[in-house]
Amino acid sequence: MSAYILHYAPDNASLIVRLALEHRRLPYRTRLVNRAAAEQAGAAYRALNPHGLIPVLETPQGTLFETGAILLWLADRHGGLAPSPDMRDRAGFLKWLFFVSNTLHPALRMTFYPEKYAGPDKLHQAALRKTMQTAIATHLGTLDAVAAQCPVWLDPAHPGVMHFYLAACLRWCALYPSDADRGWFRLADTPHLRNLCAAVEALPCTRAAQDAEGLGPTPFTAPCLATPPEGSAT
Amino acid sequence: MSAYILHYAPDNASLIVRLALEHRRLPYRTRLVNRAAAEQAGAAYRALNPHGLIPVLETPQGTLFETGAILLWLADRHGGLAPSPDMRDRAGFLKWLFFVSNTLHPALRMTFYPEKYAGPDKLHQAALRKTMQTAIATHLGTLDAVAAQCPVWLDPAHPGVMHFYLAACLRWCALYPSDADRGWFRLADTPHLRNLCAAVEALPCTRAAQDAEGLGPTPFTAPCLATPPEGSAT
Repeated sequence: MSAYILHYAPDNASLIVRLALEHRRLPYRTRLVNRAAAEQAGAAYRALNPHGLIPVLETPQGTLFETGAILLWLADRHGGLAPSPDMRDRAGFLKWLFFVSNTLHPALRMTFYPEKYAGPDKLHQAALRKTMQTAIATHLGTLDAVAAQCPVWLDPAHPGVMHFYLAACLRWCALYPSDADRGWFRLADTPHLRNLCAAVEALPCTRAAQDAEGLGPTPFTAPCLATPPEGSAT
Repeated sequence: MSAYILHYAPDNASLIVRLALEHRRLPYRTRLVNRAAAEQAGAAYRALNPHGLIPVLETPQGTLFETGAILLWLADRHGGLAPSPDMRDRAGFLKWLFFVSNTLHPALRMTFYPEKYAGPDKLHQAALRKTMQTAIATHLGTLDAVAAQCPVWLDPAHPGVMHFYLAACLRWCALYPSDADRGWFRLADTPHLRNLCAAVEALPCTRAAQDAEGLGPTPFTAPCLATPPEGSAT
């Protein structure tokens, strides 16, 4: 099998794909996207992903982008990371994967980069961030209630792409934007998601990501800002 | 095969699922969600979809929501609507399906319901809408360039879930919010997407949707506001 090439920046959404690749022991190489030089907005990177977003995964079937698409494609191609199309759990998995991809993840982006949505006015940006943080707290409560029912694709004993996606989102809730008030978020408010974070944190794939991206000793249950060996998270 | 039950409101995202069901000639029944009475926010509907969003599709595998998830699940279960997981075109299809679901569609929602994101201030709402309309125009340009390459999942001669999703989004760009300036959008600016709209418009599934939801004579190439036989679009 050809190795995959993961275009990544530390503690970016590429982290989720790295966890999936490592967990499934799939061979891959990495290419650092230098965010400090805004490489993701340059012509070379946009030839891979016209939206200039990280990650990109180069595969034998072409260049993939969109975190959710990469996760689903890897899960379907290699198995063991999510319910397959013929499984009864597929429907539940898909509806929540799309929800995380099109609602939770974009809401986080709006709090990180409010200027891309609200425009240049700081008051507009603050209002957007506050509204979206309230929405994210609601979404996490909804997801915690789903996790309480322990579907296989959220069972802490059966790690897969949804675990990795949520653990990363929860990490980012605790950390970013680093200059803003963090009082709106407490992992303890969603105990089932906290258990999921603890389970992901104990996996060998997390150790690999910690080493590669400088994520610190408890990257999901008590995260601190990344101190990566190369590159920049923001 | 058990019939599906599609919870719908006229000219809502349920339209996309209806087109897919009709095109694939899958048996289904509908249940109107009375938006004029805000039924989608009530307890009975939230028991189906905790987010209170339309559509919901009841299936033998459980209750599905999220437009993208429903489309993908139907495509994988019944074939003929998208590249299957074993096809080379799957990667390209998935990355653009997720993009439409998590970027284009949410951007449209932000222009329709800016108060849900920007908060109650009208100036904040106007800034969000303007920024997102600019973003949508960029996204449509990007998608038009993809359509120009005619991948099978966007080929006007091979209609499938991506065609239906994009045709509906383009319709909504032309129509909503109905009280706002429409000058930012012209279908003619994206000629390959316009061709796709024309192809979808000529299909029997569109005729069925026109009759059921009152979409008028040219619902995708020159849309007018819906005059549905039952229910309310907003």
